Amino acid sequence: MLSTMQDVPLTVARILAHGSRVHGRTQVTTWTGTGEPHRRSFEDVGVRSARLAHALHGLGVREGEPVATLMWNNAEHLEAYLAVPSMGAVLHTLNLRLPPEQLAWIMRHAGDRVVVVNGSLLPLLAPLLPHLDDVEHVIVSGPGDRSALADVRPQVHDYEELLAAQPADPYPWPELDERQAAALCYTSGTTGEPKGVAYSHRSVYLHAMEVNAAASFGLTPAQICLPVVPMFHVNAWGLPHAAFMAGAALLMPDRFLQPAPLADMIEAERPTVTAGVPTIWQGLLAELDARPRDVSSLHTVVSGGSACPPSLMKDFEERHGLRIVQAWGMTETSPLGSVAYPPPGLSPEEAWPYRITQGLLPASVEFRLAGPDGRFLPWDGTSAGELEVRGPWIAGAYYGGKDGEPFRPADKFSEDGWLRTGDIGTMSPDGYLTLTDRAKDVIKSGGEWISSCELENHLMAHPDVTEAAVIAVPDEKWGERPLATVVLRDGATAGWPELRSFLGERVARWQLPERWAPVPAVPKTSVGKFDKKVLRRQYAEGELKVTVVD
Amino acid sequence: MLSTMQDVPLTVARILAHGSRVHGRTQVTTWTGTGEPHRRSFEDVGVRSARLAHALHGLGVREGEPVATLMWNNAEHLEAYLAVPSMGAVLHTLNLRLPPEQLAWIMRHAGDRVVVVNGSLLPLLAPLLPHLDDVEHVIVSGPGDRSALADVRPQVHDYEELLAAQPADPYPWPELDERQAAALCYTSGTTGEPKGVAYSHRSVYLHAMEVNAAASFGLTPAQICLPVVPMFHVNAWGLPHAAFMAGAALLMPDRFLQPAPLADMIEAERPTVTAGVPTIWQGLLAELDARPRDVSSLHTVVSGGSACPPSLMKDFEERHGLRIVQAWGMTETSPLGSVAYPPPGLSPEEAWPYRITQGLLPASVEFRLAGPDGRFLPWDGTSAGELEVRGPWIAGAYYGGKDGEPFRPADKFSEDGWLRTGDIGTMSPDGYLTLTDRAKDVIKSGGEWISSCELENHLMAHPDVTEAAVIAVPDEKWGERPLATVVLRDGATAGWPELRSFLGERVARWQLPERWAPVPAVPKTSVGKFDKKVLRRQYAEGELKVTVVD
Repeated sequence: MLSTMQDVPLTVARILAHGSRVHGRTQVTTWTGTGEPHRRSFEDVGVRSARLAHALHGLGVREGEPVATLMWNNAEHLEAYLAVPSMGAVLHTLNLRLPPEQLAWIMRHAGDRVVVVNGSLLPLLAPLLPHLDDVEHVIVSGPGDRSALADVRPQVHDYEELLAAQPADPYPWPELDERQAAALCYTSGTTGEPKGVAYSHRSVYLHAMEVNAAASFGLTPAQICLPVVPMFHVNAWGLPHAAFMAGAALLMPDRFLQPAPLADMIEAERPTVTAGVPTIWQGLLAELDARPRDVSSLHTVVSGGSACPPSLMKDFEERHGLRIVQAWGMTETSPLGSVAYPPPGLSPEEAWPYRITQGLLPASVEFRLAGPDGRFLPWDGTSAGELEVRGPWIAGAYYGGKDGEPFRPADKFSEDGWLRTGDIGTMSPDGYLTLTDRAKDVIKSGGEWISSCELENHLMAHPDVTEAAVIAVPDEKWGERPLATVVLRDGATAGWPELRSFLGERVARWQLPERWAPVPAVPKTSVGKFDKKVLRRQYAEGELKVTVVD
Repeated sequence: MLSTMQDVPLTVARILAHGSRVHGRTQVTTWTGTGEPHRRSFEDVGVRSARLAHALHGLGVREGEPVATLMWNNAEHLEAYLAVPSMGAVLHTLNLRLPPEQLAWIMRHAGDRVVVVNGSLLPLLAPLLPHLDDVEHVIVSGPGDRSALADVRPQVHDYEELLAAQPADPYPWPELDERQAAALCYTSGTTGEPKGVAYSHRSVYLHAMEVNAAASFGLTPAQICLPVVPMFHVNAWGLPHAAFMAGAALLMPDRFLQPAPLADMIEAERPTVTAGVPTIWQGLLAELDARPRDVSSLHTVVSGGSACPPSLMKDFEERHGLRIVQAWGMTETSPLGSVAYPPPGLSPEEAWPYRITQGLLPASVEFRLAGPDGRFLPWDGTSAGELEVRGPWIAGAYYGGKDGEPFRPADKFSEDGWLRTGDIGTMSPDGYLTLTDRAKDVIKSGGEWISSCELENHLMAHPDVTEAAVIAVPDEKWGERPLATVVLRDGATAGWPELRSFLGERVARWQLPERWAPVPAVPKTSVGKFDKKVLRRQYAEGELKVTVVD
């Protein structure tokens, strides 16, 4: 039987039209450090997005073409988020924390001809331009020293002047197929070359609806959303599009991501929902401990990107009344994969084991666990396998293989099209995911698996430990054994034997590391995750000062 | 640029699989009157849905074919909601309040071969069977006198026996196109023949996501949802599918829709969210006034189907602490069109004017107002035109025209495919819809429009008035004038002149009715709306006792 429903595509243009008209008085506020915050209405964002589309069209941007942004979280980046996909082009967000050579590689791979850049980031972009033959136009937004652009080949435009020069007519937004690409984001490439995920209009739209579900981040016109997660990092976890869709106000931190200005802006602007990686919350916790601020407006603090140490969650809640909600996802999952709200009706003690999982599976996403032999494992809370994911906002390929077509490496996608996450974990019978390790970080010791993350979390709960990272090192007898690298707190008194017995009270004896090494800080990737590659290299090259404790 | 996302269809089978696995312990509770409520887990609903699909397949049901239900709100109806679309067939919900001849017309039009019926509704179905040549199988669920089925032509099955006879294997749910029909619902046909809307899997799925949005009904695992709105009425406003998707518990009233058992089940089962038509809430208010119950569990009471009298909203809130939220929709809009949450940060007095609108436009739905000359009107809060609607869960045609193809009557769909609602209204600049009348009920007096609903609402706020319906009657001088038909409360003391001056303090003088008539009750359609056709006929045939008051 034929359905009789209208065939209306799910596109970013619909989000833009809705937010700027129905929620026209809602505001996006951009923090400016010590000055007055900058405020702009969603209606004005709509008008300016149309002008940006006119301008990009005037520069020759056509449907299907990428437009790169090298920008902080601010109102102008939001305009690019809305205008570029709505005109049929593809928003290509550049990760400003990547090494310059990787950034250049990505821009060449995507074929970026136009870059919108914040003035403060010109010192990063300008030296790359001589190596980027494709780039024809650089559009500079906001303050910054533009002298480095004096002699470059591409045409340089000022964002505000460019917009002011456009016609005031509404832009003739094209009617797009919802399966066209809307946004392009590259993985940080911790292993091998960076890989691009091309989100579709459909995936962005459905993901925004899921973000706005009451069981997820629950954005409504009553919320003020502070995306601390950068807009170059998986579309700021979908929050800008979701907020514009729901009419939730946005508080944009711009480049002020340090703990002190974050605490200041929370106290001053009173956001209700925020999201970021655990290292951000670690820094904010220390800041609030040192100089308390009123952060009571926040009712939802989402932590994702890597596992949040349970001790951090407890400290935040006990000392500042802030409840951290863990969520799990990755570039390939848009990123919303699961959110760790506990089942209803539990006491705080009963709820705690659920809160420290990666979270509950939402309706549109499917999980399965592939065991070492490729068979799928039961959801019994103990069988650990590689997590595979399916759903309408989950990647099924990467952008631009050798022939320009999407490509599907066998270690990343199953034969039947599911995403292979490279994460090892378990599923509880009631749908909660617990990740125990990365497939590449798990320690394979005498035919058993030891989770590096579990050891790290226990170690970081010790008062003398600031950070800890555990890696697998070769061992003649066991194949691999764990090495614990530890950042000790200033004035720490505990030695390795004490830390080892502390751990011994929490995990099985055969899992206890024999090898211990102090490090000044755990090396991090561009998105703030532990970079164990570096530690493994340091160990291999004898750079770590290893003590053996039995 | 090609997107690299997985191509996963949005289907009811995904809702079934997710709810029964991830929220397997969540319960659907069916009220049984004086006995113990019947409780069934979502996991069991999943197992039984597979058995139902096996059974229907065994009876010859194939993809694209309708399966009719003539059932109350209960767990078995939920199983049909999930199993029938998931196997690729089409759930055809029959409105048990329709006149028998209309019911038979609809079943013949849809070509129903299989009917699932509650035993208590056999007195309605059995007499129709001799006139329904297509019906081959009748599946009876629950208690009821089955003797009337002794001599009928179709095969009769017992629902539980049929399920018990099926294999325990999971059903091989087919991979469906999301644009296939999932459910079929006919309008009540107050004008002309009933018209069928064939919802697609896509529209049902997206609508369920919208129901679960925080800005909408906000279903989560922490909620218990009581759909008082019947499951034969626009899929119970999408609540069963949405609750199963979100893992919200369901409280099903079965046939106990009278005020006293409703109040009892609310007190006993403590639902948090409920939805129904204003006449239900009117009845519940009187019941609670007479015999108070603890209804404090309810935080969201949605009223839709027709405008909720503001006096009812106020009385409920003042006397029982229950806040009614108006929502607007119709069979052709799935039905979620708008929900009247006020903007944030307003005092109760400031919020009130928003709460009595039909509500705020959600992101996936578009509205426009067509003026008398066909031009589209501004959203200025005063320009009134016919509401036209577009969106992915809005009908673009009706099911089964003369050639079996979808058909698009010009009075129901615009040339560019928008739904013409037949409702006259205004839009505020901030996206709130106010309906002033049905296009066919508006009173065209001397070149001006008088809203019948506005007069009715004011009249019903008078303490001596129980109900009031205003219709247009022919007038030599003005073309049309309003006639007020009024149900007076027992022991009322006010006469027509007093009611007319009461109205005169609230509307312009030229809008005041001269003609007044008492009625014992306002005639209602099968879904509880005022049936003004009947009043117009009664007036034309001189059956009303009209008094003229100047």
